[in-house]
Amino acid sequence: MNESRIIALLTDFGTRDYYVGAMKGVILGINPLAEIVDITHEIEPQNVMSAAFVLSACYHDFPAGTIFVCVVDPGVGSERRAIAAASNGHTFVGPDNGIFSLVLAGDSKMVSIENDLFFRKPVSSTFHGRDIFAPVAAHLSVGTDLEDLGPVINDPVSLADIHSRRSSENTIEGSVVHIDRFGNILTNITARDAGSGFKLEIAGRSVTERRPFYAGAEPGKLFVITGSAGFIEVSINGGSAANVLGVAVGTAVTVRLDEITSADT
Amino acid sequence: MNESRIIALLTDFGTRDYYVGAMKGVILGINPLAEIVDITHEIEPQNVMSAAFVLSACYHDFPAGTIFVCVVDPGVGSERRAIAAASNGHTFVGPDNGIFSLVLAGDSKMVSIENDLFFRKPVSSTFHGRDIFAPVAAHLSVGTDLEDLGPVINDPVSLADIHSRRSSENTIEGSVVHIDRFGNILTNITARDAGSGFKLEIAGRSVTERRPFYAGAEPGKLFVITGSAGFIEVSINGGSAANVLGVAVGTAVTVRLDEITSADT
Amino acid sequence: MNESRIIALLTDFGTRDYYVGAMKGVILGINPLAEIVDITHEIEPQNVMSAAFVLSACYHDFPAGTIFVCVVDPGVGSERRAIAAASNGHTFVGPDNGIFSLVLAGDSKMVSIENDLFFRKPVSSTFHGRDIFAPVAAHLSVGTDLEDLGPVINDPVSLADIHSRRSSENTIEGSVVHIDRFGNILTNITARDAGSGFKLEIAGRSVTERRPFYAGAEPGKLFVITGSAGFIEVSINGGSAANVLGVAVGTAVTVRLDEITSADT
Repeated sequence: MNESRIIALLTDFGTRDYYVGAMKGVILGINPLAEIVDITHEIEPQNVMSAAFVLSACYHDFPAGTIFVCVVDPGVGSERRAIAAASNGHTFVGPDNGIFSLVLAGDSKMVSIENDLFFRKPVSSTFHGRDIFAPVAAHLSVGTDLEDLGPVINDPVSLADIHSRRSSENTIEGSVVHIDRFGNILTNITARDAGSGFKLEIAGRSVTERRPFYAGAEPGKLFVITGSAGFIEVSINGGSAANVLGVAVGTAVTVRLDEITSADT
Repeated sequence: MNESRIIALLTDFGTRDYYVGAMKGVILGINPLAEIVDITHEIEPQNVMSAAFVLSACYHDFPAGTIFVCVVDPGVGSERRAIAAASNGHTFVGPDNGIFSLVLAGDSKMVSIENDLFFRKPVSSTFHGRDIFAPVAAHLSVGTDLEDLGPVINDPVSLADIHSRRSSENTIEGSVVHIDRFGNILTNITARDAGSGFKLEIAGRSVTERRPFYAGAEPGKLFVITGSAGFIEVSINGGSAANVLGVAVGTAVTVRLDEITSADT
Repeated sequence: MNESRIIALLTDFGTRDYYVGAMKGVILGINPLAEIVDITHEIEPQNVMSAAFVLSACYHDFPAGTIFVCVVDPGVGSERRAIAAASNGHTFVGPDNGIFSLVLAGDSKMVSIENDLFFRKPVSSTFHGRDIFAPVAAHLSVGTDLEDLGPVINDPVSLADIHSRRSSENTIEGSVVHIDRFGNILTNITARDAGSGFKLEIAGRSVTERRPFYAGAEPGKLFVITGSAGFIEVSINGGSAANVLGVAVGTAVTVRLDEITSADT
C-alpha cells in the first residue's frame, strides 16, 4: 500500500471541453486532498507516440510516488486493455496501447485494470479517462493496492517504432517523436548515441551545423541541438523547423556518424 | 455556513492573458488553502450556452461543497445581476445571464450578489471575474453565508433555447450546444429522449448510422453516438464533424423518432 | 527566511510539451506541499515585454510571500544572468532580461543566481526553467534565504521602451505591450496619465470614442476603454481590434491630450 497525493495528468483532451474538468472532479470526489498537476492536455489528438515521448521526458522529474494518468486513447470502448503499472517508484495508469513504452522497465509490476469496484458508474464507452483511469488513480492515491485492480500481466503493448536503431556501424535510423510549440523537431535519437560528430538527414535535407543553445544562431539556418530531455532536435532561429521542413511525428530521421560536422560553436 | 477548499473555474478568458492569474491571486489572498481547479478557460468568447453545457456535463463529478466560479459575461459592467446559488450540495457564482440554466433546480437557494464588503476594490467595470466573482467565491470557501451576499431571488435568467423540446409525437427539436476539440457536435437531445431508433437531421443532412464508440467507424462517414454526458453527438472518423457540416453552437438539430435507423453496430 | 507554499508560473513554454510538466515535477520533488499556480504559459514566444506586462497586471493580486517563476528567455544558455528578487513582499525568479522591469522597485533586494547547490543537475544549456528557476523557487519556498543564491546586484536589466513618456506638454508616447485573447490592444499608457479627455493615434488611425465597459458598443467601431489593470486599451465590438488595425506588441501609440474626445457614454 502506498499513498501519494500527487496525480499528474497527460491527455489529448484539449482544454476547451468538460473532459479534463470531469476527470479532476472524479479524482477530488475520491481523494479531496489530491494535488492534481496538469502536464499537458494538448497532445496531438490520438498521437500515442507523441504522448509516450512527452511523458518519458518529464516523469523522472516528479517525486517518487507520483501517479501519472495518461489518456491518449483512440481505441476507447473497443477491446484494448487498461493498464496500471508501478515502475521505479512511480505509478502509471492508462490504456494499454504503447503510451507507456518509454517508462516501463523490465522489473515493472503491471496489472490489467478489470475490477469495476474502482470505476465510476455507469462506465461509458467513450470516456474511460473519467470512468476508469481517473477513479483508479484516485483510489491508488488513497492506498488501494495495484494487485486489487486486476490480474498481473507481462505483455504490455509497446510501440514498434518508438526506439531508434543502429542499422549499420555508422548509421542510426530514428524518427520524429514530437513537434514542440516553437516548431523544434524532437527525435528519438539520443545525443549519447549520436556522439560528437555526425550529419543528420531529414525530409531530403542534410543538417550539419550543431549548436549548444538557441541564442545567437544564424536566422533561417537549420541546426541540430541536444534537447533538454537528452535527444537531438532540429531547430531554426526565428521560425518553426517543422514548418520549414514539412515534417510531422513519424517522419524518418537518419544520422550518419561517419560524416563529421563542423565542431560545436 | 459551509467551508470547502475546492474552487473550480470555468471562463472564456483564455490562457494567454493575466485574467485567470488575477482571479487565482485574489482567491488565494482570501483563502490561501483553496484548491483551485481549472475546468476550462477556453469557452468560445461570450458563448454563454456553450459554458452552460460544459458546466452541466461535469459539475456532478465534483465532490459536494465544490464552489464553481463561472464567468462568460458579455454584459459585464452593464445592469445584469451577479448571482450566487446553492443547489444539490454545490455552490455556483457568476453573472445572472443563463450560464447556470442547466444546473439550478427548483429547490436552489439563490441570491443577488450586492454586498460589496466581499468585493475586491476598486470594482472595475470590465473584470468582475477578478473583482466580484473570485473574491465572493473565496469568502464562501472560508465560511461566509450565501445570505450575507445579498437578497434572495427566485427569477434567475434562463436560456430560452437551451433545452430540446418535443414538437410533435415523433419529433424532437434541439440544437448544437457545444463543439468539442475533436470537432464532435454535442446536442442538447438526451439519448434517453431519443430512444433506441431514430434519424437525425442537421444542416440539410440526415445521419442514420449509430455507433457505441468512436473506434472502428468508417472513415469519412457521419454517425451518431451517445456522448459521455448522456447527450447525442454527431461525429465522423478521422475528421471534424463540425467542419464537415459547417455547423456552430445554436445550429438546429431535429430527431425523427419514427424513422428507425440501422441497429447499433 | 520566509516560507511560502504558493509558486506562480508565467512562461512562453505553451501547454503542449513537457516543459511545464518538468518544471512542476522539479518543484514538487523539492517541496511536495507547494501550491503551484499557472498564470499563463501562452506568452507570445520570446516576447519579454508582453510577459513583463502580464506579470505586472496580476502579481499584486497574489498574497504576500508568493514566489513568481517567470521564464521568457530568448537568451537561455548565453551569458545573461539569472536573477532572484524580493520586492514588496513578493519574490521573483527568472532570467535577468527585463522581464521584471515593471515589478521591481527601488528598495528591491536582488541577487544574481549563481550557487549551483540549488540547481537540478546536470544543468542543460536550453532549459533553465527546469534546471535553475524551478528548483531555486522551490528551495526558496522551503526557507532558503535569497542571499544564499548568489551575490547581491543593483543593476537589473530594464526594458527601455516599456514605460510610456510625455514627449511634450500635451503628448504621451507609448506602445502596445500586449494583445489579449479577445484582440484588445493593451497599451502602457495609464488612464491616470491620459486623464479624462484625449485622442489616441495608432497605426494611422485616430480613436476618439471612449467607453466605460464593453457591452453596448456600436459593432465595428473602435473605442478606447480603461482596462482592468489601469491602462488604456483599444477595442472593437464583435471583433479583434488588433487584427483590424494590424498591430502587434511594440507598435507605437500616441495620446494627444489637447484634442478632447466626446464624453464617456
